[in-house]
Amino acid sequence: MTFSVTVLGSSSALPTSTRFPSAHVLNAHERLFLIDCAEGTQVQLRRMRIRMSKINHIFISHLHGDHVLGLIGLISTFNLMGRKADLHIFAHKELEKNLLFNIDFYVDEMQYKVVFHPITPRKHQVIYDDGKIVVESLPLKHRVSSTGFLFREKRQLPNIRREVIEKYSLSLANIAAIKNGEDFISPNGDVIANSILTFHSLEPRSYAYCSDTAYSEKLISLIRNVDLLYHEATFANAEEKLAKQTGHSTSVNAAMIAKKSGAKKLIIGHFSSRYKSVEPLLIEARAIFENSFTVEDGDVFDIPLKRLDSGLE
Amino acid sequence: MTFSVTVLGSSSALPTSTRFPSAHVLNAHERLFLIDCAEGTQVQLRRMRIRMSKINHIFISHLHGDHVLGLIGLISTFNLMGRKADLHIFAHKELEKNLLFNIDFYVDEMQYKVVFHPITPRKHQVIYDDGKIVVESLPLKHRVSSTGFLFREKRQLPNIRREVIEKYSLSLANIAAIKNGEDFISPNGDVIANSILTFHSLEPRSYAYCSDTAYSEKLISLIRNVDLLYHEATFANAEEKLAKQTGHSTSVNAAMIAKKSGAKKLIIGHFSSRYKSVEPLLIEARAIFENSFTVEDGDVFDIPLKRLDSGLE
Repeated sequence: MTFSVTVLGSSSALPTSTRFPSAHVLNAHERLFLIDCAEGTQVQLRRMRIRMSKINHIFISHLHGDHVLGLIGLISTFNLMGRKADLHIFAHKELEKNLLFNIDFYVDEMQYKVVFHPITPRKHQVIYDDGKIVVESLPLKHRVSSTGFLFREKRQLPNIRREVIEKYSLSLANIAAIKNGEDFISPNGDVIANSILTFHSLEPRSYAYCSDTAYSEKLISLIRNVDLLYHEATFANAEEKLAKQTGHSTSVNAAMIAKKSGAKKLIIGHFSSRYKSVEPLLIEARAIFENSFTVEDGDVFDIPLKRLDSGLE
Repeated sequence: MTFSVTVLGSSSALPTSTRFPSAHVLNAHERLFLIDCAEGTQVQLRRMRIRMSKINHIFISHLHGDHVLGLIGLISTFNLMGRKADLHIFAHKELEKNLLFNIDFYVDEMQYKVVFHPITPRKHQVIYDDGKIVVESLPLKHRVSSTGFLFREKRQLPNIRREVIEKYSLSLANIAAIKNGEDFISPNGDVIANSILTFHSLEPRSYAYCSDTAYSEKLISLIRNVDLLYHEATFANAEEKLAKQTGHSTSVNAAMIAKKSGAKKLIIGHFSSRYKSVEPLLIEARAIFENSFTVEDGDVFDIPLKRLDSGLE
């Protein structure tokens, strides 16, 4: 059960010779979620040998070109590749009219359906739930309406402790009821609490994508204890004023959010093209939040399964 | 006086892990002419360290996405870079409304002017002339209106043979008149023919970009004796039928055009992603036209100065 993030692009608005603009792919249980889709995303997907046909859901943070200009090319390529499956796009409602216009202009005979899901700006809500994976919108603070995304595994029904199945001679109907949270009442009338009967073998994993955004403490409670936090860090701390003016964050801002929200790991990107090396940004972030990393295009961040005590040892 | 072509993208509609879709840059006397502008063109320009600010003229062959989807990103990037100079775009008139719509949607506060030059489809005519470089439109044969471009140096005014300046004691006024094609009448009434007095030191160089197009013999007379011919070869000869159906050419088609038009050198590209190696296409082309080459992204084809007999040796 994979839960891993691949960075397709890590520059801010101006790409460099080594960094494409923003796009990430989350592989969650072999479902591929594309997050932002800057110019060149389809080329990066090919280079990184990611199966494009497995992308059924695209999440667009905001409508600046460096996060969305690869979308029409990808839609067109999907069509040329013979796609038939619906493609779901989650974005600010204004994008829909642009997409319709450009699809009409650039794509001959669309063979599949683009299903548009408008995101309500400034609202924190579940925007996707397939029973295994949930996506929540995270209101960000930028020059235009901008939304981050929290992807998390859903906690599955608990396991029943093996020894209690024998001890109480549980039937399949008993087991189903207990899995759904009920206590068990034994033939002699004893109430056995659900918590004694069950355990969770896996802790749900989570990934938060927060870009573009200025420093926003409102984010902290929404992403608490996330396993992996991607937070933009367009600038080094010395450019704090510029960051504020442009609605962006510094490496220090990103690390503060990681620290205050209890993130397990921080990755920073969306670097201004002014930085030939992003090492200084890494040093600044680590001074505040040690488990910080700068990203490069092609980096893969895997979140391993988190096994809990099974109660069987 | 540079005259050289850099290939930015060499795939057909579907990019591959090593080939971006179509874009070329012609450097003609340090003027940079961008020819087609597929998705990712701005990234390729950066990688190849081409000074983007020197691009003032963009020529778009036709309105399929794999030739034009990088344009809005490039326009936006130019704006972020503080461009002030006009940007001239030569393309089918339908593109203008698309550009206006997308500029309005994606570009905040345009700081420079995009000057749109509609190309008259199916017409062979001069569409650009700056006194040094001339660009002619080349009607192509594709599923949609498609135009190739012939870039050529203008023949400059001739040089005067050094020995005749002394022999006839030519004044500056005499020299100017002779350069403009007049004969010289000596004080004693002898008429000295202009051809005796003058010579051309340099032969104009030329480059023709022909993509996308099916095999079209109408092209031959329009590009006769071109120094460098880029002709699309989406398919190998075995896919001749598919090429015809889709309005594309095979390697054999491209080589036939090169041979019949007397091209000095042929480069082929716009390869279908089905070919892992394009070596078979090269072999097919060379069997017909020996001086053929397949292109890779990043290839530079330099056309050296062509010095003529100066009459001084």
